[in-house]
Amino acid sequence: MILNEAIDEIIDNIQEVSSEIDSESIMQMLDMLIDAKNVFIIGLGRSGLVARAFAMRLMHLGISVYVVGETITPAINSDDCLLAISGSGETSFIISTAKTSKNRNAKIIAVTSYDDSTLGKLSDLIIHIKGRTKIDSEKDYIKRQINGRHQPLAPLGTLFEVSTLIFLEGVIAELMNKMGKTEADLKARHTVLE
Amino acid sequence: MILNEAIDEIIDNIQEVSSEIDSESIMQMLDMLIDAKNVFIIGLGRSGLVARAFAMRLMHLGISVYVVGETITPAINSDDCLLAISGSGETSFIISTAKTSKNRNAKIIAVTSYDDSTLGKLSDLIIHIKGRTKIDSEKDYIKRQINGRHQPLAPLGTLFEVSTLIFLEGVIAELMNKMGKTEADLKARHTVLE
Amino acid sequence: MILNEAIDEIIDNIQEVSSEIDSESIMQMLDMLIDAKNVFIIGLGRSGLVARAFAMRLMHLGISVYVVGETITPAINSDDCLLAISGSGETSFIISTAKTSKNRNAKIIAVTSYDDSTLGKLSDLIIHIKGRTKIDSEKDYIKRQINGRHQPLAPLGTLFEVSTLIFLEGVIAELMNKMGKTEADLKARHTVLE
Amino acid sequence: MILNEAIDEIIDNIQEVSSEIDSESIMQMLDMLIDAKNVFIIGLGRSGLVARAFAMRLMHLGISVYVVGETITPAINSDDCLLAISGSGETSFIISTAKTSKNRNAKIIAVTSYDDSTLGKLSDLIIHIKGRTKIDSEKDYIKRQINGRHQPLAPLGTLFEVSTLIFLEGVIAELMNKMGKTEADLKARHTVLE
Repeated sequence: MILNEAIDEIIDNIQEVSSEIDSESIMQMLDMLIDAKNVFIIGLGRSGLVARAFAMRLMHLGISVYVVGETITPAINSDDCLLAISGSGETSFIISTAKTSKNRNAKIIAVTSYDDSTLGKLSDLIIHIKGRTKIDSEKDYIKRQINGRHQPLAPLGTLFEVSTLIFLEGVIAELMNKMGKTEADLKARHTVLE
Repeated sequence: MILNEAIDEIIDNIQEVSSEIDSESIMQMLDMLIDAKNVFIIGLGRSGLVARAFAMRLMHLGISVYVVGETITPAINSDDCLLAISGSGETSFIISTAKTSKNRNAKIIAVTSYDDSTLGKLSDLIIHIKGRTKIDSEKDYIKRQINGRHQPLAPLGTLFEVSTLIFLEGVIAELMNKMGKTEADLKARHTVLE
Repeated sequence: MILNEAIDEIIDNIQEVSSEIDSESIMQMLDMLIDAKNVFIIGLGRSGLVARAFAMRLMHLGISVYVVGETITPAINSDDCLLAISGSGETSFIISTAKTSKNRNAKIIAVTSYDDSTLGKLSDLIIHIKGRTKIDSEKDYIKRQINGRHQPLAPLGTLFEVSTLIFLEGVIAELMNKMGKTEADLKARHTVLE
Repeated sequence: MILNEAIDEIIDNIQEVSSEIDSESIMQMLDMLIDAKNVFIIGLGRSGLVARAFAMRLMHLGISVYVVGETITPAINSDDCLLAISGSGETSFIISTAKTSKNRNAKIIAVTSYDDSTLGKLSDLIIHIKGRTKIDSEKDYIKRQINGRHQPLAPLGTLFEVSTLIFLEGVIAELMNKMGKTEADLKARHTVLE
């Protein structure tokens, strides 16, 4: 089924992302998340949903975390860290958020496919997550033509969004280990009001 | 214009709510909000928006507050307080939330038009906010017939929702005074990321 | 109690807003909301909550409405109308939204305290809602000093936010009348999933 | 790194989910989504974020879709379809939503790890997505002990949530194909207000 092919295409991208991970960057990322007084997370659209899924687990780990745009998110300050998720690194609201955060001396982690983007240049640490590149799109196009199919199986930002989500699940596993947290610790902080 | 009449009808209800406020309940409410380790706020629909407007100001005051249903809301515990807003006091998700909170020994403040509702009975403190009562509806109906108009100017839960919002703005003024907080203190915690 | 004084201060502002309403602007606003293929609503912070409370009632009236930032909000087009709520008229995300909307030939309604703001200048229709002005702040300050109280009873954007909410409740009453909708019509579209 | 191991564990689960997909259920699911007047999507916690990611793509495809709990979600009716995501199939708010929907004669699709759950029994169609089962947990435990590690790499509902997200990305690919939609069609409906 097309469904299985789409899943395979997504898994391929995730495996590529996984193989390209630079352990030094990860170590730096873990330190920035743990050392921050508060972590602020931002993403828009589907990247915003990925951002929230990660924020929820940081909360379960006992890290003080806020999602930009939610009700109780306070001012960001110099002891804080902003983690910004943007495939293109050019989403205007995210750039203005990063600029404000930088002006207030907060640290910035960018999760993006484009290290040279405006967001990338504003950041203290860039986590590179491969999405669909133009070259891939062309290769895909030829492959799809041969198959008699003309549309991508993972349209728009899908590869970036899903790969970022799973990468961040891996970061949670690293944090659990580094912070000595058990699944029971996470469960104890999980909301009971649903 | 109808618009001005609608506003007058809303103001009438707010003034009635203001005149009926019981200062002992307010003192108790302030203490519960200040003494709680964390305040959890819940409301559904438009009452949920009122709940969030209040939560945002509590955050500005430096009170640790969470909105039920948002990303980073943790488990509620015995040192915490749930403030639940429900006109009817019978919204099913709110009742199940209140029951879970009570089982975990959290304190409960109900903001409702119906003190004898299921929510009211579960609560440690009831703040009564008058909405549109059945008798009012009938009086209104006669008034509207005389005017040749047959529909309420503040339909459905509007009177309860708006009166609750403004009542809670008054609670913020009380909290500022009691906690010795200035407008500058609030501004310092107001989000800068918008 | 301070609580009652705060409510009185809020009511004073609402009454002033109500008395200053220009019926021609309202007629134009009603037409723009009814004639639009889709109405898009935006506000940030507490103004965003006011925006949502209004959007929910527009949905109850059967108007096709979207809240900017929610999951299922599509692209805005030339048959659509953006209603933007910003006290200062200078919130950066709202201005960039208004510019994009204007470039795509959507109509824009601004609800603001500052007609000459960037948002005001981008808009096809300005609805002026008085908030706390600087002059008021000074008058208030003297009044508060005399009373031995030094902090405003309705801090930050409270007067604008609450007055806008109640103004928009009045707009709903106008729309019900103009569209021939009954409270039962609204109730029929009210969510049953809570 | 632990990070890569966690990603591998997640990919293993996704591949198992992919291999177990029953094409007849998928065909039925596609028909239910396309034939519904409106699709309502519900999930809580991280499953709610997965639900929204799917809803956004349905909107891009031009399907009329609402997320339960968002501002403009109307009443559900007999021509509509509820898609409910719950790993356990026992989340209380989701069950009460499913019951209300059933009483109003809407069709229900359950996405769950437990076909015999309360949600499963209320549904017209069950899509089974394997999460972490008890047997897996035990196997994992032994594996982790051998490795000298004692905590799961994908804690709590992670495997279900991520596998469901990627499964639903595959459903989008199927829908694009069946509805004859191009990536350009999706892009045309993608929000421009961010």
